[in-house]
Amino acid sequence: MDSRKIGILGGGQLGRMMVEAAHRLNIQTVILDAPGAPAKQINALHAHVNGSFASADSIRELAEQCDILTYEIEHIDTKVLEEIDGQVELQPSWRTVRVIQDKYLQKDHLSQAGVSTAESLAVEESTPVCLAEIGRKLGFPFMLKSRTLAYDGRGNYVVKNEEAIPAALEALKNRPLYAEKWARFTKELAVMVVRTKDGQCFSYPTVETVHEDNICKLVYAPARVPAGTMDKARRLAEKAVGSFWGAGIFGVEMFLLEDGSLLINELAPRPHNSGHYTIEACPTSQFEAHIRAITGLPLTPDSTTLATPSTNAVMLNLLGPSTFKIAREALSTKGATVHLYGKAEAKVGRKMGHLTVVAGSMSEAEYQAAPLIKIFDDEKSGAPESAVAEKPAPKEKKPVVAIIMGSDSDLPVMKAGAEILKKFGVEFEVTIVSAHRTPDRMSTFAKEARARGLKAIIAGAGGAAHLPGMVAAMCTLPVIGVPVKGSVLDGVDSLHSIVQMPVSSPP
Amino acid sequence: MDSRKIGILGGGQLGRMMVEAAHRLNIQTVILDAPGAPAKQINALHAHVNGSFASADSIRELAEQCDILTYEIEHIDTKVLEEIDGQVELQPSWRTVRVIQDKYLQKDHLSQAGVSTAESLAVEESTPVCLAEIGRKLGFPFMLKSRTLAYDGRGNYVVKNEEAIPAALEALKNRPLYAEKWARFTKELAVMVVRTKDGQCFSYPTVETVHEDNICKLVYAPARVPAGTMDKARRLAEKAVGSFWGAGIFGVEMFLLEDGSLLINELAPRPHNSGHYTIEACPTSQFEAHIRAITGLPLTPDSTTLATPSTNAVMLNLLGPSTFKIAREALSTKGATVHLYGKAEAKVGRKMGHLTVVAGSMSEAEYQAAPLIKIFDDEKSGAPESAVAEKPAPKEKKPVVAIIMGSDSDLPVMKAGAEILKKFGVEFEVTIVSAHRTPDRMSTFAKEARARGLKAIIAGAGGAAHLPGMVAAMCTLPVIGVPVKGSVLDGVDSLHSIVQMPVSSPP
Repeated sequence: MDSRKIGILGGGQLGRMMVEAAHRLNIQTVILDAPGAPAKQINALHAHVNGSFASADSIRELAEQCDILTYEIEHIDTKVLEEIDGQVELQPSWRTVRVIQDKYLQKDHLSQAGVSTAESLAVEESTPVCLAEIGRKLGFPFMLKSRTLAYDGRGNYVVKNEEAIPAALEALKNRPLYAEKWARFTKELAVMVVRTKDGQCFSYPTVETVHEDNICKLVYAPARVPAGTMDKARRLAEKAVGSFWGAGIFGVEMFLLEDGSLLINELAPRPHNSGHYTIEACPTSQFEAHIRAITGLPLTPDSTTLATPSTNAVMLNLLGPSTFKIAREALSTKGATVHLYGKAEAKVGRKMGHLTVVAGSMSEAEYQAAPLIKIFDDEKSGAPESAVAEKPAPKEKKPVVAIIMGSDSDLPVMKAGAEILKKFGVEFEVTIVSAHRTPDRMSTFAKEARARGLKAIIAGAGGAAHLPGMVAAMCTLPVIGVPVKGSVLDGVDSLHSIVQMPVSSPP
Repeated sequence: MDSRKIGILGGGQLGRMMVEAAHRLNIQTVILDAPGAPAKQINALHAHVNGSFASADSIRELAEQCDILTYEIEHIDTKVLEEIDGQVELQPSWRTVRVIQDKYLQKDHLSQAGVSTAESLAVEESTPVCLAEIGRKLGFPFMLKSRTLAYDGRGNYVVKNEEAIPAALEALKNRPLYAEKWARFTKELAVMVVRTKDGQCFSYPTVETVHEDNICKLVYAPARVPAGTMDKARRLAEKAVGSFWGAGIFGVEMFLLEDGSLLINELAPRPHNSGHYTIEACPTSQFEAHIRAITGLPLTPDSTTLATPSTNAVMLNLLGPSTFKIAREALSTKGATVHLYGKAEAKVGRKMGHLTVVAGSMSEAEYQAAPLIKIFDDEKSGAPESAVAEKPAPKEKKPVVAIIMGSDSDLPVMKAGAEILKKFGVEFEVTIVSAHRTPDRMSTFAKEARARGLKAIIAGAGGAAHLPGMVAAMCTLPVIGVPVKGSVLDGVDSLHSIVQMPVSSPP
């Protein structure tokens, strides 16, 4: 597709998956990393460059061998990049890398671009006096962070109160620091955004990330948040990425706060762990999107959508020694695809691979992923093996009855049922589902009802009253239809519809 | 996942995609083929073996370097395989390769295993007399085929009548021959089946293949045939593969005859072109299934399903010089993923790559793939470029009105509409769709209606009469509801339901 050669600074898993995408487009890549690095293993088209992305000479050597230079990591000496700019094409720009690699500069840049991000203050001097002053400005607790070379949570310290300041300074000594206002978030969201050479930004769906010990553990795609929040997150991510320079994929991590607002946590000018799900769940993976963006090959808004409207995915990182046990179990898990990175030593916390579970609904994807997450958790806490790989026990207080209705105007009729269930201590949920206004939501509700642990459904509707009959047609739980009297016909319309609804028989 | 090394005889695109799948499981592979072969390009873990799969010495050299030996092609000297059996593990067995590589032995084996296949006769002597005798037994036309080394239609000759016999013998001279009864098929179907070491067979969905000039051009997954035919094809394919020896993936091609019955055309003991769609459309690709089968890693019936119940795919092969033009256009096509094989020279008819379009419905997948297929066709026929990449013009006589009803008992009422449409020369279709009995079919019908070119829907139903209202809720075409009188209530139930159905407004 393009005869120019791409040099990649860094040959870990991100580089490896970039190479895989480039192979499929017959685009040649050259890697700079230690011999035998994951990305080098899968590319026999070149001898590659042995060395480190931290070495200026190695970077110059790579630049000699390629036409376009890109990165799988942002912790690079940007002075060298600035020096070789023009000799090779750098994508994204070294300016982008320079701003992003210093988290304080990054935050400052975003603020100036009008992008919401956590309030940040530079730590001019690493002294208790200076930090106490910051504490007064930002309030306690606040985050003390290393401006550079910080990833997977290394270089962060929560300063709970003034007394904690000396310990914080000790933990992060000899590093350039900044302070960030504490964000009381309810969820962490992330959006992958690909920026073309002419500055267009296309975003993938908003996803939900779960971190443990500061390392990404799980990604839910799409995020389990309202559609309005999804859109807002994408717009925010596009605006943030739009403010930088050059082409490529960007990972944008953000916080969803209690009041529903969003703050950008940080950006990465490269493929990102929160976008691995795109390999299975999207027509164009984040890695291919990156390759296409930096070579100027076509990208459209269609490139960054989910494969089908009903595609849902859960991504689980495989870390350290439990990797192979979980990976093996995943081979027998419906909808799961395993990716191992070819790393030799499975050190604790090391990203050895990941897996993605794809299903036709999020509840199905969660259900299939649950036993794998359980092994992950058990191995971490050293739990006995016996319980491994069982489907998850139902959570406590899970509803067994759903009361659904086409509109909240039906509530006065339906609440009688809710009161009886309450009296007998039966857990239930009440929700609005309309056959006519939200037919897909109804279909999903009906099809997932049994898997969610429901035992019966009480469905009320007035007028044409399609809800009880359609839900009964689409699930195998008993459905009790409740006719609701409308303003005309005295409810006989609704009654006629409901008495003729289909029988739902147990499977 | 497995520390044993897999040797692959042949390093073309099938070997390449096997290597890609093996990499993701951290399983090492060694390739025997010419230097720079597609599969070798993406594997820097070994020096590989330079040579040909036709050379006994090269095969012995490969065997020295691996623990399990497998094939991307069946035209191998099985005497060498027999000789090295035990020294390495051969998967599938050399016995399987030996029977399958001789098409007459293959057909004979299938017949003896009770698997339907075209009636075949060995050509004892390549003489006009012998062939005339065969013509009398099988009838004209019949297929004269080379027993060995035949692929992509090379080695086949249609003997139309007795006069054509000398030309047929000339065309296939110096080859061992057999004759096959002519199969009057309406479609070609194919099923990928993976066979585990303990002889379990799991089949992927039945797909539809379209050949042109004896080369696979298109694959539709799943096949556009009734569910009963899909199941019958899978059972037939599983039975066929079950009769062989050893583990691995098998491609099973078959004919769907006019009477709805199925005949096996031929088998391949390896990944197959008709299974490429599995990379995007299934959790486990045919290549990964093969790697897992031959190493004994877990496989389940879930491994071979489509990613979601609404996943549909169209695969288009990229052949010869038009490859890069189509591939580039595919980068702007919704749902399309491109695979190029790293072959240097784009000779006419050479398989340079393929692309897969995935969508939430087959009509959407077809719609997106159509402009790509048009380029394929135009480039082949040398048509002007101007018309390229337009969405397809509607076929003639495409229905613009659909008359649907919940049951054929509604037909006496509904036929009045059909008669009026006929009178005015309006193209229409009549079909049974039930809201209660086939809710998913109804949903698909409603959602695809506009894209299929329909302009209006006439929907009739009795009793609770959910059909018109639900279809109106799920599409933006005008829906005319027709109440049908049931045996009770004099149709007032149906009338009440329908007069209260939602408005469907144009988008």
